Amino acid sequence: MATVRLLSDDEVAANPAAKAVFDDIRATRKSDFVNNFWRGLANDPVLLKRTWEEVKAVMVGEGALDPLTRELIYIAVSSANSCQYCVHSHTAAARAKGMDDAQYGELLAIIGLAGKTNHLVTAMQIPADPEFLVTS
Amino acid sequence: MATVRLLSDDEVAANPAAKAVFDDIRATRKSDFVNNFWRGLANDPVLLKRTWEEVKAVMVGEGALDPLTRELIYIAVSSANSCQYCVHSHTAAARAKGMDDAQYGELLAIIGLAGKTNHLVTAMQIPADPEFLVTS
Amino acid sequence: MATVRLLSDDEVAANPAAKAVFDDIRATRKSDFVNNFWRGLANDPVLLKRTWEEVKAVMVGEGALDPLTRELIYIAVSSANSCQYCVHSHTAAARAKGMDDAQYGELLAIIGLAGKTNHLVTAMQIPADPEFLVTS
Amino acid sequence: MATVRLLSDDEVAANPAAKAVFDDIRATRKSDFVNNFWRGLANDPVLLKRTWEEVKAVMVGEGALDPLTRELIYIAVSSANSCQYCVHSHTAAARAKGMDDAQYGELLAIIGLAGKTNHLVTAMQIPADPEFLVTS
Amino acid sequence: MATVRLLSDDEVAANPAAKAVFDDIRATRKSDFVNNFWRGLANDPVLLKRTWEEVKAVMVGEGALDPLTRELIYIAVSSANSCQYCVHSHTAAARAKGMDDAQYGELLAIIGLAGKTNHLVTAMQIPADPEFLVTS
Amino acid sequence: MATVRLLSDDEVAANPAAKAVFDDIRATRKSDFVNNFWRGLANDPVLLKRTWEEVKAVMVGEGALDPLTRELIYIAVSSANSCQYCVHSHTAAARAKGMDDAQYGELLAIIGLAGKTNHLVTAMQIPADPEFLVTS
Repeated sequence: MATVRLLSDDEVAANPAAKAVFDDIRATRKSDFVNNFWRGLANDPVLLKRTWEEVKAVMVGEGALDPLTRELIYIAVSSANSCQYCVHSHTAAARAKGMDDAQYGELLAIIGLAGKTNHLVTAMQIPADPEFLVTS
Repeated sequence: MATVRLLSDDEVAANPAAKAVFDDIRATRKSDFVNNFWRGLANDPVLLKRTWEEVKAVMVGEGALDPLTRELIYIAVSSANSCQYCVHSHTAAARAKGMDDAQYGELLAIIGLAGKTNHLVTAMQIPADPEFLVTS
Repeated sequence: MATVRLLSDDEVAANPAAKAVFDDIRATRKSDFVNNFWRGLANDPVLLKRTWEEVKAVMVGEGALDPLTRELIYIAVSSANSCQYCVHSHTAAARAKGMDDAQYGELLAIIGLAGKTNHLVTAMQIPADPEFLVTS
Repeated sequence: MATVRLLSDDEVAANPAAKAVFDDIRATRKSDFVNNFWRGLANDPVLLKRTWEEVKAVMVGEGALDPLTRELIYIAVSSANSCQYCVHSHTAAARAKGMDDAQYGELLAIIGLAGKTNHLVTAMQIPADPEFLVTS
Repeated sequence: MATVRLLSDDEVAANPAAKAVFDDIRATRKSDFVNNFWRGLANDPVLLKRTWEEVKAVMVGEGALDPLTRELIYIAVSSANSCQYCVHSHTAAARAKGMDDAQYGELLAIIGLAGKTNHLVTAMQIPADPEFLVTS
Repeated sequence: MATVRLLSDDEVAANPAAKAVFDDIRATRKSDFVNNFWRGLANDPVLLKRTWEEVKAVMVGEGALDPLTRELIYIAVSSANSCQYCVHSHTAAARAKGMDDAQYGELLAIIGLAGKTNHLVTAMQIPADPEFLVTS
């Protein structure tokens, strides 16, 4: 159903550059499971490597935002962009990082409310208050 | 520049229903400042009241997600939806709730990364892994 | 501020193909005013002509939907697409075609609600009910 | 296929708050059928109740816009937002409220045309004509 | 699964206006295959004819941009708009027009990068440099 | 007007990591001009460096797609995403790389047409033809 082939582990193994990325995904996540996004990207090892390194730098490890909060933000963007796969994969990731039902319910409520007020604001073309523009 | 008039306090005061909402906004936020979004909505007191009550229920007070995290999610949705006013108002709100530069930098990095992988996934039409579909 | 020059009437007059379209816009609308969208398109008379003919066929004259309803639909799409100019121009057009404050308030309420439920549905990835799929 | 469980009537019956909303949906629509959107929202009875009350207030009953026009606007927003479920559910609703083939054909023509001119305007960054900005 | 019936060749043949468009699609493309988009549009022969004539004028034949480049642009817009069918159909068209794996990999890299920087720019609300605004 | 400060050359010079990126931008582009996007990102030197390295890898130098074609694709995505700054900056870049009026006119025509058919397809929920799905 994809526009690219989703490479199997055997196919990935045939390309050392792609294989190295898959090895690092598995080592970093401490799991043998590699999801379809990476199997599609594996057709272009350069794009695969650059994308994984960015995901690793931004989403993995210590940071100013905790790992679960980062996933909530990812779900929010993905929902607004109507990215089905991304919604599924990052909702699963958020649950794996401890998102409970109450947190998920609030996330949904905020995503819905933001969708609503974004549309209202754009339909009314509200200009920014000078109070918001403190940085220029 | 808006498609509606942005009502002044005097104009709002002429409509008791709108006035009551503005009073509650000020009391809830402990601030006299009421931003343009509400001044545009004040043309329709019913829509004003329903929208404010939802914002108050979702964004104000205790919850499973802390107030700053809720603002970060709001910024994420608003950025993906290209809502200029919403980006400005919720970035200001996040700063008022304590967002520091490191947190903001990470928020931007996640929003950018999600925008990138959302586009890559959609361009490749990646199908959801069965592992993600545990809930049906 | 545009990426193209907005052609003046004198400049348009220098190109017979563009001039003919401007003449038809003025005759059809019974107004001398030609808005900036057409002045930008006038740089490419073929694109100008094709676009105007489509607008004329779809938005002007008798149809199964009355002219005001057509403008409301146009505003709805333009709001969801964050098209500032389109929101302004079609809101002005809707008012010129008789949209009153009560109708506009309801339009805004529907646009906001649809934005909200669109986001909720996408965030939850709700599958279509078989009852909706009667046509295949 | 959803990220949430779609609750059965038995599961909804176990939660009085959710049950009350489902009862009101059925009474208001005079139909036993409750579509999947509400079954997903039922996991969070507070969000379910608030969303249904807004849908009921905006989409049901008398208003300045007739019920069919409201559905056409909903379809327009949902199409621009690429919300598959929403397109299906509101197209079914519009047909149930009397939308005929000629009306539907015109709706599609307007949605397509607006999508086109929205993109053209954004690509050219056309500034709003002063004539449109009468309200500030 | 569509909201409209996808007309078979026999059904199209019953409407001379739709039949003429299908004949022209087949003659222009030198192929008997007519894809589902046209079978959906065939329910409204006027919309079918206008849409095909535009596609033929813009995407077929000689031009300032070669046919493959035009398909790449089409894929880019369709990916940003989350249009699944359009991504599939235009990726297939690009391959039929000679897109190789290296070109496709670069296309994906650009679409992903643009998605990322679009989101970063919108989240930061970067104002246009005066150097870019040379045309007004 | 941005949500971040746009750093001056003096401010950038105070941070060696940001300074190194600005030096490389100038050397790579053989121009002293550094546009606002980079001045906003300079607040977070890590994000600045990663973003520039990706832009340099994808948009600069030899490739399977020529530099102008890459800019056309970038404009297409940016238009669909309603990113004003990105439309301006990449249209200026395309012109600097030789885009002539005929090419630009065709680009606009394709962007507009894709916007139209994307909306029509989504509104009709057209399913992918099996003929398009050759890769799985």
